[in-house]
Amino acid sequence: MKSEEAERIILGIDPGTTVTGYGLIKVTGRNPSLITLGIIDLRKKEDHFKKIRTIFEQTLELIDHYHPDEFAIEAPFFGKNVQSMLKLGRAQGAAIAAALYRDLPVFEYAPRMIKVSITGRGQASKEQVAAMLKTILSFRSEKMVLDATDALGAALCHFYQSCKPAAAKEYRNWSDFIRKNSDRLKG
Amino acid sequence: MKSEEAERIILGIDPGTTVTGYGLIKVTGRNPSLITLGIIDLRKKEDHFKKIRTIFEQTLELIDHYHPDEFAIEAPFFGKNVQSMLKLGRAQGAAIAAALYRDLPVFEYAPRMIKVSITGRGQASKEQVAAMLKTILSFRSEKMVLDATDALGAALCHFYQSCKPAAAKEYRNWSDFIRKNSDRLKG
Repeated sequence: MKSEEAERIILGIDPGTTVTGYGLIKVTGRNPSLITLGIIDLRKKEDHFKKIRTIFEQTLELIDHYHPDEFAIEAPFFGKNVQSMLKLGRAQGAAIAAALYRDLPVFEYAPRMIKVSITGRGQASKEQVAAMLKTILSFRSEKMVLDATDALGAALCHFYQSCKPAAAKEYRNWSDFIRKNSDRLKG
Repeated sequence: MKSEEAERIILGIDPGTTVTGYGLIKVTGRNPSLITLGIIDLRKKEDHFKKIRTIFEQTLELIDHYHPDEFAIEAPFFGKNVQSMLKLGRAQGAAIAAALYRDLPVFEYAPRMIKVSITGRGQASKEQVAAMLKTILSFRSEKMVLDATDALGAALCHFYQSCKPAAAKEYRNWSDFIRKNSDRLKG
């Protein structure tokens, strides 16, 4: 039987319609460790709806296999154009629906916040985030898939944020979300 | 046993995070008739994620109750700003994920196309679309919920389009979708 106080599993997801990254960490007491990380490769799925379906079903599979307690999503909030945001929103919606369908609490974090949380710098490169994740979670470089960095970062960022209850963001409503994220930029 | 040639059911959905409309029609031969229409009211759900969850679960319930053969979605493609499109995309993603999870083929139609298809005019008002739907589907006004008009319109539009195979749009990929919908405006 799993004690939520003593041990919990966090699934991080970085949804995209080209590649959706995922990362799973286990937190034992105050100690986070890597379970696994990887990508859902959508490049060969030509049909937009096949991509949405794959994101939903693979997220569900990850949940059913690893039984995470919480779900953290990397969520850019501003983007260059409305088409790309609609597309991204659909991918996010499919992943979020899978998490909620399995009763997981969902938390979302802006890319910049994840970078700050992991490296201390909002302008850190993907490689710098990856290097810090390797150090913090003590795993070797062969395991790292760069496309999964942000997802694993989201999971670890959520762990850090949940250690500081006041800073953890679970939004009341959309206006609240916008108000708390006026500094968000996609990328 | 249901023969797809002789009879089919189409579920139309108009996703939104305030109200999500739905409409179901049965097509017997070439004759469409109303099964039901209504709304999923999300106004009292303060939490954004509760809205996403409700859209997903209620869409799934509609599918499991009425066993539609096809799923048509009203999908504005251009909007005023990226935030509203991300929000709309998430709502669409949740509804689409529910349909795909139940193996339904998904078809999407722009608001303007639905209006043209039902009334012959792209600039028709909601009331004009509603009036035509009542005439075509022979039901009385008490049954009409204006927020469900676009959803019911999407279902009927899909029926008309599927009678003209060349015009039915099931997109190959996102570029294909954009190319075929350059005239779309959120409406």
